[in-house]
Amino acid sequence: MRIEIICTGDEVLTGKIVNTNFSYMSQKLEDVGLSVHWGTTVGDDRESLLDAFRHAAQRADAVIVNGGLGPTVDDLSQEVAAQAAGVDLVLNEEWLEKMESFFTKRSRIMPPNNRKQAMLPATAEVIDNPIGTACGFALDIGRARFFFTPGVPRELRRMLEEQVVPRLLARGGAPATIHLKRFHSYGLGESHVDALLTGVGDLAPDGSIKLGFRAHYPQLETKLTVRGTDMDDVRRRLEPVQAEVRKRLGNFIMAEDDQTLEGVVLAELTRQGATLALVETFTSGQIAARVGHLPGAEHVLRAGVTVRDRTALHKALDIQGFTLADDLTQETTESVAHAARAHTGATHALVVLIDLDEGADRIDFGGTIWIAIATAEEVAFRRSRILGGREWVRLGAVELGLDCLRRYLQRLPVVERIDFEKT
Amino acid sequence: MRIEIICTGDEVLTGKIVNTNFSYMSQKLEDVGLSVHWGTTVGDDRESLLDAFRHAAQRADAVIVNGGLGPTVDDLSQEVAAQAAGVDLVLNEEWLEKMESFFTKRSRIMPPNNRKQAMLPATAEVIDNPIGTACGFALDIGRARFFFTPGVPRELRRMLEEQVVPRLLARGGAPATIHLKRFHSYGLGESHVDALLTGVGDLAPDGSIKLGFRAHYPQLETKLTVRGTDMDDVRRRLEPVQAEVRKRLGNFIMAEDDQTLEGVVLAELTRQGATLALVETFTSGQIAARVGHLPGAEHVLRAGVTVRDRTALHKALDIQGFTLADDLTQETTESVAHAARAHTGATHALVVLIDLDEGADRIDFGGTIWIAIATAEEVAFRRSRILGGREWVRLGAVELGLDCLRRYLQRLPVVERIDFEKT
Repeated sequence: MRIEIICTGDEVLTGKIVNTNFSYMSQKLEDVGLSVHWGTTVGDDRESLLDAFRHAAQRADAVIVNGGLGPTVDDLSQEVAAQAAGVDLVLNEEWLEKMESFFTKRSRIMPPNNRKQAMLPATAEVIDNPIGTACGFALDIGRARFFFTPGVPRELRRMLEEQVVPRLLARGGAPATIHLKRFHSYGLGESHVDALLTGVGDLAPDGSIKLGFRAHYPQLETKLTVRGTDMDDVRRRLEPVQAEVRKRLGNFIMAEDDQTLEGVVLAELTRQGATLALVETFTSGQIAARVGHLPGAEHVLRAGVTVRDRTALHKALDIQGFTLADDLTQETTESVAHAARAHTGATHALVVLIDLDEGADRIDFGGTIWIAIATAEEVAFRRSRILGGREWVRLGAVELGLDCLRRYLQRLPVVERIDFEKT
Repeated sequence: MRIEIICTGDEVLTGKIVNTNFSYMSQKLEDVGLSVHWGTTVGDDRESLLDAFRHAAQRADAVIVNGGLGPTVDDLSQEVAAQAAGVDLVLNEEWLEKMESFFTKRSRIMPPNNRKQAMLPATAEVIDNPIGTACGFALDIGRARFFFTPGVPRELRRMLEEQVVPRLLARGGAPATIHLKRFHSYGLGESHVDALLTGVGDLAPDGSIKLGFRAHYPQLETKLTVRGTDMDDVRRRLEPVQAEVRKRLGNFIMAEDDQTLEGVVLAELTRQGATLALVETFTSGQIAARVGHLPGAEHVLRAGVTVRDRTALHKALDIQGFTLADDLTQETTESVAHAARAHTGATHALVVLIDLDEGADRIDFGGTIWIAIATAEEVAFRRSRILGGREWVRLGAVELGLDCLRRYLQRLPVVERIDFEKT
């Protein structure tokens, strides 16, 4: 099935907003085994829209149009769709009532120009939008089925996932259920993970599982797209494959599906009734910022301390008995972790100290990262060296620090070689 | 002049990467008074590329193609360009030598497949890429001039700004010099600023200045695009208009052009020989993270302290003599600022404490923000209330806190009503 996407709107065409709707839609279709063949971006302009619809209508089996369903005069999708299909625009009474009750529920009167959002091409099939006034719809133009979706990201997401994707799958004759299983890892590069997972797909019958990746440094997402007749069938097919992925990637899997590394760390600390103190230098509060704003963090994050000159830690943490002015050692790093615990009263302290290289930023600019995790009973230590410029070092250190804490809390080895470090 | 952009590559088409090159190019052209009329996205696929080139060649005056100039087999731009133009691919000896010296300088041998990057359509005009091996080029296909650019963002940026834009402007018969002047503000919404600036463009002769905006909450960018015969002419036209913009937006302008709010704050602290202590609650290190990693911050940022339960501040800052367990007041907020100075020895302390609403996140979820800035001589205070959900409150509080410090350091009023607050 040949699928095209048409994104409309002056804000997207002029680059005022980055077109994340396109990448979202395209990824979502890839996740269920469908592929986008062509993308078009046009402005709020009658002639361009008509051209774009007509071109796509000749080439594609299915077309998703995004945007242009709003109440203002520059929202032209319904009108141009009707023109391209050679049918009239008619008022959809049902949608009009829905909109009126939408406003009533919010104690507001519907402005008259919203009525325009209920004007649909005569042959259109309505596609529900449970969270907005923009009415989705589908109709045939030329040889293609067109699906019109709202530009507001959360409305698009819901409509695409709940309504458009199932219709596309039905048209493509695909099995009824498609499920996406995701693993988030840190420390192994995409090609390394690809090599580690060679052949795992074969554990499922007849190629019903597809393996894919999405790298966004410093994390890597490993994706399994599973096709089955229903959810039970999907689970049966997925089971041996996900068990094998967990076995092969082992300690490097830090979260699955909608989980995040910081969420896993916070949940584990909460479960253990623990509290946390953080000490940072060059990461400057980035580690605290990942955890601190999450719901529930108010019971866990006791204190975060950032200094850029580490000798200031003496003052900030009431440190006595050793000096931070000299080169860092394992001993001084661990002592800072003990001092952070003692000073804040937290059960756990995570310390991430960084010695940056001298000189200007460049691609081989690096930093040496000194990490210690202290509890009342013990202290864990990890040293690493990351290259790739100031920003790369900073992002890597934040991830490594949080991941060491995750490993410590889950009783996994804190020291395990990663691909991104220079030793 | 009708301009189109064609973005190529499977990673962009499948949404694996978000297409920021498109929005960057489109904005950059808008900034110099040119407009993109149509955008196309296709994969690394010979047939799609040829179709895309041929369609654009019929409609456009100029086409920018992005991507597909690399050394691997899926990089097809030169080959398909030659096919579409009906000319042969020939080896460009000059570019080959350039690439070889590029590798030699880095003490590496050029891999044989890089030779492919020097194969250009016979009629191509070479466009230099001073920082990479992908050779840019221009040639005519149909009625349009095509410009081929690399997919690597930093290479694209340099080539577009230095080489492609001047060629487009020359083709469009535009005056020789176009300049973009930018003002960054916080606290006034786009429509408010638009109203405040009514008529400023008329201060320049014959519509040579165009006013535009780019909102990215919490900041707003106000842009003046100036056309002139040369840079002196541009400066002459811009002078009265920028003076008027500065006058009308006044204290709300926190930075201009490539400056950032955090950069302005750091520069001002550095100039005054000052040092800084930061105290945060719900913003959880976000304020420290904006400043702390900047070059030079190691001499200024004395300490950043994050707590989620503000009673933990007693311990963290050695506070005695008042309690933080009760509701916040101006007095307790100011006392925390004094304590932060005393504890860290910094000349300036910025304290941003937040009382979050109770309950689940929702669109009218809000927070009350208590800000104090202390020096040895005095203390400044600001209270605000921001609605819009947890994330909105957090972003707004970070910006408001930093902007209050900027105002204090520049001797401007710290308290001035902003559009984003509820009073």
